[in-house]
Amino acid sequence: MSVRIGKKTIELQNRVVIKGFGSVCGAKESKGPLKDFFDISYDDNKFGKETWEEAEGVLQEKAVNIAIEKSKVDKKEIDFILAGDLLDQCVSSMLGVKKLKIPFLGQFGACSTMAQTILVSSLLVESKAARNAIAVTSSHFCSAERQYRFPLDYGGQRTPNAQWTVTGSGAVLLGEGEKIESPYIKRVMAGTIEDFGVTDSSNMGAAMAPSAASTLKYFFKDTQTTPKDYDLIVTGDLGEIGSKLLVELLEKEKINMGGNYNDCGLMIYYKEEQDVHAGGSGCGCSASVLCSCILKKMKKKELNNILFIATGALMSPTSFQQGKSIPGIAHLIQICN
Amino acid sequence: MSVRIGKKTIELQNRVVIKGFGSVCGAKESKGPLKDFFDISYDDNKFGKETWEEAEGVLQEKAVNIAIEKSKVDKKEIDFILAGDLLDQCVSSMLGVKKLKIPFLGQFGACSTMAQTILVSSLLVESKAARNAIAVTSSHFCSAERQYRFPLDYGGQRTPNAQWTVTGSGAVLLGEGEKIESPYIKRVMAGTIEDFGVTDSSNMGAAMAPSAASTLKYFFKDTQTTPKDYDLIVTGDLGEIGSKLLVELLEKEKINMGGNYNDCGLMIYYKEEQDVHAGGSGCGCSASVLCSCILKKMKKKELNNILFIATGALMSPTSFQQGKSIPGIAHLIQICN
Repeated sequence: MSVRIGKKTIELQNRVVIKGFGSVCGAKESKGPLKDFFDISYDDNKFGKETWEEAEGVLQEKAVNIAIEKSKVDKKEIDFILAGDLLDQCVSSMLGVKKLKIPFLGQFGACSTMAQTILVSSLLVESKAARNAIAVTSSHFCSAERQYRFPLDYGGQRTPNAQWTVTGSGAVLLGEGEKIESPYIKRVMAGTIEDFGVTDSSNMGAAMAPSAASTLKYFFKDTQTTPKDYDLIVTGDLGEIGSKLLVELLEKEKINMGGNYNDCGLMIYYKEEQDVHAGGSGCGCSASVLCSCILKKMKKKELNNILFIATGALMSPTSFQQGKSIPGIAHLIQICN
Repeated sequence: MSVRIGKKTIELQNRVVIKGFGSVCGAKESKGPLKDFFDISYDDNKFGKETWEEAEGVLQEKAVNIAIEKSKVDKKEIDFILAGDLLDQCVSSMLGVKKLKIPFLGQFGACSTMAQTILVSSLLVESKAARNAIAVTSSHFCSAERQYRFPLDYGGQRTPNAQWTVTGSGAVLLGEGEKIESPYIKRVMAGTIEDFGVTDSSNMGAAMAPSAASTLKYFFKDTQTTPKDYDLIVTGDLGEIGSKLLVELLEKEKINMGGNYNDCGLMIYYKEEQDVHAGGSGCGCSASVLCSCILKKMKKKELNNILFIATGALMSPTSFQQGKSIPGIAHLIQICN
């Protein structure tokens, strides 16, 4: 049974272990600083498929299959797959996981979806509703850019505060484990929708930073901890502008993020050489960074206690065209060894 | 703790009670056979808002507020809201529930979303991750028609097998209750994605019927029950064509659905007078029918043991334009007194 701590934090009492994880990335990401951590890197962006939506599905399919393989769990003992992406009606998730024939729950939290899928999956495992559950998300530069901004052929110029949607996917397989097994999910917190009236869809970092600040503030208060208590606090994906804003917002609350803070959007590309402006984004960004370098470092005990806060900008192309604001949301997962 | 029965069914061990529920509908629905069951009926479709997306948000907001009010639960003790709709990026859910400041998990299962939100919410309550949780979905004829088919002003003619997207919403508030409280969630089952190659987006019933048949077949086998054991088995929303197909598919499996079977899409409109062709659809259809006549009849003990199977067609306007097939999914909830 879960125990609620303070106002919003949920502490898991059973050992919900990350039994396997997989990460897959596209051509640009395979030339970035994390290139050696990805399980599969592609050197094109269609992966033999006709459409970008199907190609994005391939990313999920591969990431999930690697996670299952590494976990050594029998596929028949996986009771749920929670998947999401940025596309209308989560269509790439459906395309990616349909062959698996595992009960499917589509999740939508924009770029916060990886934390959301892990949050719900870990609670399903804890309650014994699932013996094992998979959490997976993806994004694809080409499918996202066409849907949210401009057709690629149009060659639109990107603003300096724009982020680059990552072509990638990450999947984790969660299951109940022995007390000594790790990494495991210790605590989770779901965020609320925060609307500060940002209407610039090229500046997602600013739209999402207040949500991350709110979630972290509640979490530190609930758990009576400070940033120093963690090896790494990683947001995904505030990018350059959003992550600076987050640090400032928390300073106002007398919370000093210190040197252990980073952002998945800043980790995945070489900023200057790869021309990504404010950094990476997309729910494949936080997922692929978590399931490559972060979890691999946890397995090696180079990291032992981390906070993963995925942030989402809740908008649709329609709401943006209607001039509506872009509210943010941020969910938090504490992963320990 | 949940107990797994057979291959796929989950039986809840704690008493997860429907403490409150609310239903809201638009102008057409308020003239249908269920008119006296809805908590709020509107006589226009914009509800004072500028856009249809915002109007759809109003449906959710009102349905949730009624559910909270009826439940007499303190808003501060509601730990999650699980919401979904048919629109890109679940934008109406976000607009509808953002003011509530309750931790939000966006769900996407197309027209199956009401069963999905209840399924996850009830498991969160059972695991004590949530003291109370809200499950809500909506659909709106105008926002859905523009997004999936044609702009309304175009005046496109509908095919005889098309269903009419319901303008409506339903919300339930789930919380842990005493052993005598009812109605309560007894068992749940999440469905898998079934792809039979249907590509006609005007014939959703045919795309979804095999999923409903698969979910029901597994459930009857897991629980060693037959359709006769239930007061009502209600799908949402197979419409006229899909529900006939479901009965035929189950007959082949030697399962006779008998006289207790109905479909939310057939219950909500007068078929002839209201010119709805194959019936109602949309995740507001099953939600508003469940949260109006079905749960009100359960409160009066006219119904005591029901199966609610919401079915979804997993497609996006993009995947449809790309000529891709429309897979289906169906999740099941058993509600008892």
